[in-house]
Amino acid sequence: MHHYAAVPLDKSYLLLNHGPVTLVSSAAAGRQNVMAAAWAMPLDFSPPKVAVVIDAQTLTRELIEASGEFVLSIPVRAQAERVLAAGSQSGRDGDKFVLTGLSPLAASQVGAPLIAGCAACLECKVLPEAHNQQRYDLFIGEVVAAWADPAVFSQGRWHFDTDAARTLHYVAGGAFFATGEPVAVS
Amino acid sequence: MHHYAAVPLDKSYLLLNHGPVTLVSSAAAGRQNVMAAAWAMPLDFSPPKVAVVIDAQTLTRELIEASGEFVLSIPVRAQAERVLAAGSQSGRDGDKFVLTGLSPLAASQVGAPLIAGCAACLECKVLPEAHNQQRYDLFIGEVVAAWADPAVFSQGRWHFDTDAARTLHYVAGGAFFATGEPVAVS
Repeated sequence: MHHYAAVPLDKSYLLLNHGPVTLVSSAAAGRQNVMAAAWAMPLDFSPPKVAVVIDAQTLTRELIEASGEFVLSIPVRAQAERVLAAGSQSGRDGDKFVLTGLSPLAASQVGAPLIAGCAACLECKVLPEAHNQQRYDLFIGEVVAAWADPAVFSQGRWHFDTDAARTLHYVAGGAFFATGEPVAVS
Repeated sequence: MHHYAAVPLDKSYLLLNHGPVTLVSSAAAGRQNVMAAAWAMPLDFSPPKVAVVIDAQTLTRELIEASGEFVLSIPVRAQAERVLAAGSQSGRDGDKFVLTGLSPLAASQVGAPLIAGCAACLECKVLPEAHNQQRYDLFIGEVVAAWADPAVFSQGRWHFDTDAARTLHYVAGGAFFATGEPVAVS
């Protein structure tokens, strides 16, 4: 078992709405992998869908095309170094979980693993769209299960009580921003 | 003229990479409009492309489908109230620029306006994808010009020197996060 708590599917868009960097994990035929992806967003509320860009040259792409499944995880600041490693090394060069120090956990609805220590994880099944995949490297997935660390997300709300637990936004070249302070407009 | 400085097209993805909330502006047949969109992301580096979700019921959708053009602007914290207004009112109920207090500025390559006072603006031409537009409300655009406020973005880098100038990340229900502190991994 893991430390994540289930998030109702109709609230799962909230995990990705603020534009955090993601980890994309995948598994097929006894292999599993994880990469970083900044280009991910919600695409619908209910049933919840996501869109994510997966480069054609990656092992992740091969595993997702073979399995039709992936998990989007939302890493936290304490994992920034591992996220960068996941984005700069290839699963073709060795086991990415060994290379990055990220740990896989069994998911509930898909074969791709959750990633330990993240703020949240979204289990997704690919909605096949060959044109988008081939022309734009764009994958659309339906979210079939969602999880969050109750220390940072509960009752449909984010609450970042420590800097280490804040989610991340990727810029380039090893530079991220942490998710900053709340701004409320009434 | 406006206060924005041109951003090279091959650096324009940096304006959207960290997942900020956007304003989508549009114009057609003598009408113009602006709405808020949290579901926007880069889709390619060069030529730069973006993906954005535009609900079928919106006036923005009508104007973009008529013109084949839109502008994505990246608002700042000082504009949070106006962004929320742009996201909660419809251009069918009145001039959104009057309703929100946001100010349009002439763009260079498209008829849709830039928005004054933002961190950055991306002028986009729609790459027609009828299936995505109809099934997912998903629009893909090629970025044909990009602009940034040199006070917050220059030489390919963000530098938020004041809290009011930070970009925003939308959660829900009038709640945003400001873009937080830089996290560098070497």
